[in-house]
Amino acid sequence: MFEHQRHKPPRELARSRELIVVCAPMRSKVNLSRIARATGCCAVERIICTGPAKLDRRIARDGAESVNIETHRTLPPVLTQLKAEGYRLVGLEQTTGSHDLHQYKFDRRTALVIGNERTGLTPELLTLLDDVVEIPVWGLPYSYNVATATVMALYEYCRQHPEG
Amino acid sequence: MFEHQRHKPPRELARSRELIVVCAPMRSKVNLSRIARATGCCAVERIICTGPAKLDRRIARDGAESVNIETHRTLPPVLTQLKAEGYRLVGLEQTTGSHDLHQYKFDRRTALVIGNERTGLTPELLTLLDDVVEIPVWGLPYSYNVATATVMALYEYCRQHPEG
Repeated sequence: MFEHQRHKPPRELARSRELIVVCAPMRSKVNLSRIARATGCCAVERIICTGPAKLDRRIARDGAESVNIETHRTLPPVLTQLKAEGYRLVGLEQTTGSHDLHQYKFDRRTALVIGNERTGLTPELLTLLDDVVEIPVWGLPYSYNVATATVMALYEYCRQHPEG
Repeated sequence: MFEHQRHKPPRELARSRELIVVCAPMRSKVNLSRIARATGCCAVERIICTGPAKLDRRIARDGAESVNIETHRTLPPVLTQLKAEGYRLVGLEQTTGSHDLHQYKFDRRTALVIGNERTGLTPELLTLLDDVVEIPVWGLPYSYNVATATVMALYEYCRQHPEG
């Protein structure tokens, strides 16, 4: 009845994705690499990072090449620039006033801002954001790994914008 | 405007989750551990594994304890039993006849069946399934990591059944 299709052709987008993933400095290149692979599969074209932003190619796979990974010294000027270019700045964090990811309607032109594994999004970054989304948690350990949370948000964005 | 809430209380389910995650033998305890942490956060109560099913506690966190991880020698008798208990057996794989995860309507009582990182779901397992779902892919490397794909499917199930 079901037959494995190992090399199924990918979907085509009607237009390029306007989602950008913006990462605060990460502790772990494993997390950044996992994010790079998933964004590659979603045909997201840009990741903006701070810090050394090293990738583990065994984890990121072709995501390391298909996604343009830009590094900056600090994020606030980058966010201000993206805002001026019409991007909605959406943080992924548990905060006061955050929206449930299940209900949130993503603008096509969105910069998804991801915090550090331990410290999350700093107060300085939070003041620059238009919206914050959070993912419901029902059980222990009460918090998703940062790459897991990013993948869920990527999935939700692509579900809402399957054509790009 | 937005203030970080580090220990926000989790959501409450109206009833226990009836989702079970069933894993073919995994090469990597990292992937199984990532799945365990995410299932813990989603308050999924059971993972059924084959093989040694060792967890890395630093990755799985409390998911290692909050989720009941059962190990079996082989999966076919387990799937037959779950079927008899009224579970819909849903594989996660690129196959002929698979449903797009974006459109698929999950039964509450579902066993989500995950394949090995390299070989996916075997033909023997595929013949036992009721449905197969797959996640759209738009870009390189053209396949999600197994834990990433599982996390996306978990997210979609929970989005459809936020109350359990």
